[in-house]
Amino acid sequence: MGHAFDDAVALTPLDENRSQGHTSPAYANMVGPFGGITAAQALSAVLRHPQLLGEPVSLTVNFCAAVADGDFAVTARPVRTNRSTQHWVIEMTQGDATVLTATAFTALRRDTWGAGEHAMPAVAAPAEVDLPRGPGRVEWINRYEMRFAEGGFPTAWDGADHGVSRTRLWLRDQPPRPLDFASLTALSDVFFPRIWRRRARPVPIGTVSMTVYFHAGAEQLKATGTGYLLGQAQAQAFQKGYFDQTAQLWNEAAELLVTTHQIVYYKE
Amino acid sequence: MGHAFDDAVALTPLDENRSQGHTSPAYANMVGPFGGITAAQALSAVLRHPQLLGEPVSLTVNFCAAVADGDFAVTARPVRTNRSTQHWVIEMTQGDATVLTATAFTALRRDTWGAGEHAMPAVAAPAEVDLPRGPGRVEWINRYEMRFAEGGFPTAWDGADHGVSRTRLWLRDQPPRPLDFASLTALSDVFFPRIWRRRARPVPIGTVSMTVYFHAGAEQLKATGTGYLLGQAQAQAFQKGYFDQTAQLWNEAAELLVTTHQIVYYKE
Repeated sequence: MGHAFDDAVALTPLDENRSQGHTSPAYANMVGPFGGITAAQALSAVLRHPQLLGEPVSLTVNFCAAVADGDFAVTARPVRTNRSTQHWVIEMTQGDATVLTATAFTALRRDTWGAGEHAMPAVAAPAEVDLPRGPGRVEWINRYEMRFAEGGFPTAWDGADHGVSRTRLWLRDQPPRPLDFASLTALSDVFFPRIWRRRARPVPIGTVSMTVYFHAGAEQLKATGTGYLLGQAQAQAFQKGYFDQTAQLWNEAAELLVTTHQIVYYKE
Repeated sequence: MGHAFDDAVALTPLDENRSQGHTSPAYANMVGPFGGITAAQALSAVLRHPQLLGEPVSLTVNFCAAVADGDFAVTARPVRTNRSTQHWVIEMTQGDATVLTATAFTALRRDTWGAGEHAMPAVAAPAEVDLPRGPGRVEWINRYEMRFAEGGFPTAWDGADHGVSRTRLWLRDQPPRPLDFASLTALSDVFFPRIWRRRARPVPIGTVSMTVYFHAGAEQLKATGTGYLLGQAQAQAFQKGYFDQTAQLWNEAAELLVTTHQIVYYKE
């Protein structure tokens, strides 16, 4: 039997731009699927495209509606192909309804001068950080190993303003699976809602838009393999029903693989 | 005579979704227009749409090619309208060529609990920070008042690795113009390239994708008026031809109006 992630992001090509996929019970959320798996499905439509040039550099997905359990269609169009770069417009539909829009940018990358400017924070090693007790409250949580080094899931919903929303955790697919662009996309969305952390109140939320910048190329992902990633996420503002989240993912070699951002609806 | 910004973002409706605009010499960059004005034009196509619901919450623009001097067409389609939210897909073309793709999310915002989590850094007041000497090297620079409190434009291209890419500056339209969503979008892109700051080397660059999260609503923008914004921008990673930039814009009342991110091509 293959990995649940591979099954979840598998697409059947219908024509050059159009594919069919299906939601996966293994990644079910409270209502509809985990957003990260939906984002990974959108990127997969680009990754399987015969005209694909290069590797993903950026991806923005907009969640328009809860994806209903069952089949969906996803269209990925290369709207502009330059010498070494390519721009994509992506849309996911169920029946006549648009459930997701996205844009992506892929490129052939070259070796250049490079540097990090956001050092990996010092936290205890994965083996020294406890696993949460008991199964996740929604199914998709069980598809990830998460070891919270700071700012774990609230144990008491006391509704106090804890003043800070930062979380740091070690994470990887459960069972472990070699990292690729699709799984890295899903991993970019694993952070529980920052308002739950800040307020210790389980208010209704929903991610509206998520952007992923891939600093790593395929070789670096291959070298990362099934190792842990350190994820860090924090909000910068909560205002009038929406908060943002800015996050980073490093591998155990302290290489920054991804910086990612999202804006999230909340009801208070 | 009106403000150059109003002329630059003016669109002529062609049908419900489609408008025509034109590039503005006042916002010319080295090649083509300043990206911020192009992003503002894309948002303007949403703002002028008769079916618009609510105010902008997020915008992602992808720059597919340099916009040629002259006319362009911009199409903004409301692909999903929910009770109080709306998703947009935007495309800018010149002839048959796509020069920009974008997505936007608008919403009717409600009063909720709110909080900031990225305090405005302490810098000298605008009047105490010198203006750069002499005119900008490209025309659009002259459309903004920029007072660099930290990390100003390099005065010597020494090619050294300065180790940090952070810039803090006071900024506003020049001449001053009351803040609105379109001008705030353009202001989100005024930071000179982070690699020029970090490396003090004027390497060729080009923004590929920019995302703007609007934390402020129209009332807050109105209250901000023609006051200064404090902008802060910094890269997190420079790798294989692309660096990211994460930035914030506060008003003088220390309210965080925007958080914004971009990924930028560089040649080394």
